[in-house]
Amino acid sequence: TTPTLVLIPGDGIGQEVVPEAARVLQAVMPALHLVEAEAGWGAFQRHGVSVPPATLDAIRQAGAALFGAVQSPARKVAGYRSAILTMRQALDLYANVRPVHSLPLPNARPHVNLLIVRENTEGLYVGEETSDGETVTAQRRITRRASARIGRVAAHLARQRLTIVHKANILPVSDGLFRDTVRAVVAETRPDLAVDELLVDVAAYHLARTPERFDTLVAPNLYGDILSDLAAVWCGGLGLAPSINLGDGVAVAEPVHGSAPDIAGKGIANPIAAILSGALLCRYVWRNESAASAIEQAVATALQRGAATPDLGGTLSTREMTDAVLAALGA
Amino acid sequence: TTPTLVLIPGDGIGQEVVPEAARVLQAVMPALHLVEAEAGWGAFQRHGVSVPPATLDAIRQAGAALFGAVQSPARKVAGYRSAILTMRQALDLYANVRPVHSLPLPNARPHVNLLIVRENTEGLYVGEETSDGETVTAQRRITRRASARIGRVAAHLARQRLTIVHKANILPVSDGLFRDTVRAVVAETRPDLAVDELLVDVAAYHLARTPERFDTLVAPNLYGDILSDLAAVWCGGLGLAPSINLGDGVAVAEPVHGSAPDIAGKGIANPIAAILSGALLCRYVWRNESAASAIEQAVATALQRGAATPDLGGTLSTREMTDAVLAALGA
Ligand SMILES: CC(C)[C@H](C(=O)O)[C@@H](O)C(=O)O
Ligand SMILES: CC(C)[C@H](C(=O)O)[C@@H](O)C(=O)O
Repeated sequence: TTPTLVLIPGDGIGQEVVPEAARVLQAVMPALHLVEAEAGWGAFQRHGVSVPPATLDAIRQAGAALFGAVQSPARKVAGYRSAILTMRQALDLYANVRPVHSLPLPNARPHVNLLIVRENTEGLYVGEETSDGETVTAQRRITRRASARIGRVAAHLARQRLTIVHKANILPVSDGLFRDTVRAVVAETRPDLAVDELLVDVAAYHLARTPERFDTLVAPNLYGDILSDLAAVWCGGLGLAPSINLGDGVAVAEPVHGSAPDIAGKGIANPIAAILSGALLCRYVWRNESAASAIEQAVATALQRGAATPDLGGTLSTREMTDAVLAALGA
Repeated sequence: TTPTLVLIPGDGIGQEVVPEAARVLQAVMPALHLVEAEAGWGAFQRHGVSVPPATLDAIRQAGAALFGAVQSPARKVAGYRSAILTMRQALDLYANVRPVHSLPLPNARPHVNLLIVRENTEGLYVGEETSDGETVTAQRRITRRASARIGRVAAHLARQRLTIVHKANILPVSDGLFRDTVRAVVAETRPDLAVDELLVDVAAYHLARTPERFDTLVAPNLYGDILSDLAAVWCGGLGLAPSINLGDGVAVAEPVHGSAPDIAGKGIANPIAAILSGALLCRYVWRNESAASAIEQAVATALQRGAATPDLGGTLSTREMTDAVLAALGA
């Protein structure tokens, strides 16, 4: 069957970077079939939902989507729910995978090559809060089932070493369950893997100080959210950081950056994060490692040759930056 | 009345650094009266509690303590509770204040001068977890009262700008209460202060990337825990990072580092974090800004002259490092 990708540009610069990433994907996978779908704040204003059912159906059917970015309303809007959270929940995208590689940029730190595997469905993200006006209690849920399945993903993706992140000195029962479940899964499925653990505060310290020491980290939802933004510094900034949300038979890749309303519509957004997110689709969905590596190598080559959008101190437009990647691909 | 300080060396290198920090404090405040008290894992083994009632009484009476470090048992031990958590709760030490200043060290990043004000009593630290074996639910509690009092501390300590850290896009009710309450307190008590806000993941990114941009940050408990460890990178590492836990009329200063069992008993632990924690007592408890500044200046001078313990690549012992600080003090 023809591999199909649902393009969901979303809001702001998502509209600009997603089509460019699609050009790169088509260069490495000429047979790739593309369809478009809506999601985000714009979709909410048009349809009253941030992710229309047709979009969810299209993703389910294709098994793969590339999502740009969504603008969030500054304050709570009745009925609005973040498009990315909606997709994660509706499609049960339970693993958020974020690789952080040093890119060849001036002043960049070399030798970082780590992977953060974040549980993507529970923890504080269950969104259960009760209030009496003076005291609010939010529920943080950790289950054996979700811990086991994220443990399996982490065990599968880790190279030599897996670091389990938790705060079991404060949350011995919930984070203890997470830690012990992941350990058990790893012992069963990857007995060759070295496993260690770090408290989340200590992990933040080491990620900021010596990111080179990490291979793969696995963390509950919010810790993974915080640590993966932090770690994105080492690939050159949020503008260059890719991610992929994985479920069973379905995946949504997305650049880590937001919709950047300040530069939207100017054609100067950096497409690299979206392009690298496309590479993650090649690797994790279509199992096309050579296509994934080709894209990553071309990005490195283009940057090495000095190709740069304004956020990197250059003058290239979004399209010209993509052209530089395509040129490096030999496409 | 004579200012009194309770020294609580605790475990491991706490035993080595606290007496040295006391020497420095006595040099700048000759009238300071010192008493000793027990807490930690050793105390638990001797008395069956990590913080004996006599220790709590001594701190309450003196209003000030310098705490070294405690060793935590590797796995849960019945009846044992972390000494620092016990003191925070029993003495209602509701504000954890951590300044991060660039120190003159080779390869250190200059121009960082920020303060993290962390709510120290609630959030996920309320320690309420329920489990049915498959699902664990932990309670995260945010109250208007605790948010208001940490807001008052932050408003009081901030210089020009206060950044409120939250995750109100995921936790609109609890983190919304925290944010809005802090904003209201600041508007009332420090209308001159510029106030902004950052999501905790974005704050981690900016703290790792451009720490120079921050003045003072205020955060709920766990976010503050994570961000302050991360930020400690910029003062030269955890071995140099001071902190103070503040309540009403009572304070416990503590170096951010742990008991370091690997180097305990060798006389080579770096005393700087403990010495700088002593300076925080001068500033925030005894309102002796000139003593606080004198200590901080002497530490900078000693480091500039090349004084260094093994963790900093030097050969000085704990005592010799302290002597270097005392020499810089002119004491
Ligand atoms: C936009 C927000 C809800 C989201 C999250 O917190 O998961 C984002 O920070 C991310 O990491 O994808
Ligand atoms: C030791 C631990 C309980 C403590 C905390 O999490 O508060 C420590 O990390 C700190 O920051 O003082």
